[in-house]
Formats: sequence, C-alpha cells, structure tokens
Amino acid sequence: MAKPKGRVILFPSLLAPGATDDVLPRRNLELLRQVRFFVVEELRSARRFLKHCHRDIDIDALSFEVLNEHTAAEEVAAMLQPALEGHDIGVISEAGCPAVADPGADLVAAAQRAGVEVLPLVGPSSILLSLMASGFNGQSFVFRGYLPVEARARAAAFKEMERAIARNRQTQIFIETPYRNRRLLEELTSSLPATMLLCVAVDINGEHQNISTRQLQWWKANPPALEKRPAIFLLYS
Amino acid sequence: MAKPKGRVILFPSLLAPGATDDVLPRRNLELLRQVRFFVVEELRSARRFLKHCHRDIDIDALSFEVLNEHTAAEEVAAMLQPALEGHDIGVISEAGCPAVADPGADLVAAAQRAGVEVLPLVGPSSILLSLMASGFNGQSFVFRGYLPVEARARAAAFKEMERAIARNRQTQIFIETPYRNRRLLEELTSSLPATMLLCVAVDINGEHQNISTRQLQWWKANPPALEKRPAIFLLYS
Repeated sequence: MAKPKGRVILFPSLLAPGATDDVLPRRNLELLRQVRFFVVEELRSARRFLKHCHRDIDIDALSFEVLNEHTAAEEVAAMLQPALEGHDIGVISEAGCPAVADPGADLVAAAQRAGVEVLPLVGPSSILLSLMASGFNGQSFVFRGYLPVEARARAAAFKEMERAIARNRQTQIFIETPYRNRRLLEELTSSLPATMLLCVAVDINGEHQNISTRQLQWWKANPPALEKRPAIFLLYS
Repeated sequence: MAKPKGRVILFPSLLAPGATDDVLPRRNLELLRQVRFFVVEELRSARRFLKHCHRDIDIDALSFEVLNEHTAAEEVAAMLQPALEGHDIGVISEAGCPAVADPGADLVAAAQRAGVEVLPLVGPSSILLSLMASGFNGQSFVFRGYLPVEARARAAAFKEMERAIARNRQTQIFIETPYRNRRLLEELTSSLPATMLLCVAVDINGEHQNISTRQLQWWKANPPALEKRPAIFLLYS
C-alpha cells in the first residue's frame, strides 16, 4: 500500500511589520499551527514570523531546514522526505509569497515531480498589490525581477520595455536593490519618454505605504526618498 | 481649504465558494463594513459577496455603480466623485483581485490621475497562486491573458512562448475560456516539445482544486477533465 503523502504548504509572510490579521487569512494561521516540518529561506526571520503568528508556539518542537540560493539540488530533494512519510511541510520565505521571487520554487518543483500536493496560501505579494494599485494593464504584464546591472544590457532592457509597452500594451514590473533605487529612477527619467507613466510602490503594507503613478517628467521634478526603502517599479503608457 | 479625499479600496473577492476566513484577511471584512460607495463589475455577484462577508449587511443603504468593459471613459471618471467628497470607494470584481484582469484598472488609473489614494487589499489571485504552486521561475514571468483565437496568431503565440522560455527562462502564464480548454491542451501538446513542462491549475481555492505540473507528453496521455472548469495554464521547461 502506498504511504500517505503530506503536502507542501506555501505560507506567505509579512511584507512589513504589522498585525497578521491585516494581511493573512485566518486559515493560514490555523494551518501554521498544525505543521511541524518547515523549509525556510532564513531561520531567524521564519522563527520571528512564527512567534508573531502564535505567541505561545513551541519553536523547539519544530524542525527547520534552510533553503536558499546556496542550497544544492540534491539537498532540496531530501527536504521532501517528511512529505513522503505523511507529514505536511511548511515553506516560509523572508517576505511575501514563497516560490515567487525566492528559492522555494526548487522545493515546489521537486514536490510536483514526486506527486506531492502543493497548497499555495493567500498572502501579500508586492508584485500583485502594486499592479492592482498602479492603474496599469492587468490583462498583460511581465515581471522582470532585477534589471541587469551592466550598462549596455541595462540600456537594452529599457529599450525592450519601451517596445513591449508600445507593441503589446504590456505592463512592465521590476525591482532594484534599495541602495540603487535613486540611480534607477534617474536612469528611467533620462532614457525613456517624458510622458511615459511610472508607478513607484514604496513600503507596501507598511506604515509609510505610498503607491503613486505619475509621468516620468513628474518623477524627475519630484524625486521621492527611496534610500533603503523597499520599492517596486511599474512602467506603462 | 482642500476637501478631504476618500480612498479607492480594492477588495478581492472569492475564486470559489467557501469561507471568507480561508482566503481573506480579517481587515478586508472590517473595511468592507465601513464603505458605502461601491464600484463593481457585476451587481449580483458583488451583492452576493457582500452578504457572504456580512450576513447582516444592509445592502439597500449602499450605493453601487457598475464598471465593465462597456463603460465609457467619462463615466469612469464620474465614479470617483464620492472620493473627491471625502468618502471611500470600494471596488469589487467578479472573482479575485480587482484591476488585475478586469475593468477596475480604469477607475484606479483615474484615481491616480486625481491624486486619490489607492489601497490594494490582499486576496486570492489565480495568477499568483498557480505561479507559487507550479514550481516554475518566479523571478521572471509573464501573464498573457487570453491567447489569440485566430489560428496563425495563435501559432505565433505558441512559438513566442517557446522562445521566451528558452532565451529568458521566463514562465508563461495564460488563460482560456473554459469551453476551449480541451482544445487548448491538444494544441499545446501537439505544437510544443514533448518534454516541456505544463502546469494546469484547476478550480483554485475550490473543492476540487488541482495544481499539477507535468511534461506535455504526460498531459497528452492523461488529458484532465477541463470542461466548464476555471483553469489557468503555465509553461516552462
């Protein structure tokens, strides 16, 4: 007889400090309490998240494996073991939805190959929330992750985004490491049409959340304070 | 003195029948109770959703405007009026997140132009949930909406997706009207490489949720029952 299989449950975490009830459905909190095996991107932030969700949780009774960009493929496959023995595995990433812009996707791929059920839970995603609030086309959009750093590849990416907007009416979504945010904004305003629309979404779900869509020439004249603040950028026309 | 402005609040609705606590944060339900002015995609489903969230809600005390693909641009701008007079406006679409694949985006764009704050709330999105559970690349992905219907444009779209996966490691996400789902699957399996991975996500958040990633040759040999079931498709390799 085949062993009963556990599931891989994807638990979104918070994007900013705040109450769990503000951004997570109650079901997430209930399921979280039932899971003993966790695969997490970062041990400390995952433990802090669990404590934040359930103050009385017994962290020492739980098992944690760390899955990050340094984890080897064969280690990822081994992390599935509890599910093959009938236990649910909870995946928690540093911020937002597991497996969308972090290494959790490798574990999910291994689960799919092994026929283990994957249960994605609802939670905050800066990509989705900024797209909703931008006013841009949500029928056709692309998330590009980080733009290339090298100057020529970066210029080519700007041109490609301009073309994709003009030709396909496709919303362009991308991120940058916070210390480069200001430079990115300068580059955008100097290399793309002045009337093109840019949405800058800063500190989503945080105390100073600001999601504003303006023409590039407006941003050029009114550069926002972006240093060290988590931001996501969207372009459209 | 400038009038105080209300906000445009984007309320995700359910993807499938079920408990609101399973997929919506409690904050959404609290905010929903405070709003009197609504802009909705479909009157009947929005009323049903409101009743489902708050059984004792007084629907007749609320104001509803319908915003769909037939609404003229000048009507959309007029729908912002309550916000300019200091009242919050709630936006509800038929299923999932407002303004992502529906006309709500036009109202949001008008709000951004008028400097009205837009507050996107967390909720279920079939695009995001299926991407999380697919095991595919979440650092680079595109949502294409509906593929073209005309045969030549459709074949070109398949080729373009194949190229974008090979060249940019970019996950391809698309949808189809349910009655064409079976034909779409046949076309995918006959025109793309047999070992390419397809994730089919059916009835997300519903009783018969199934999100499975397999090679195209597997889907060809094991065609799922897709008639009249909401589905979303993802391709990767």
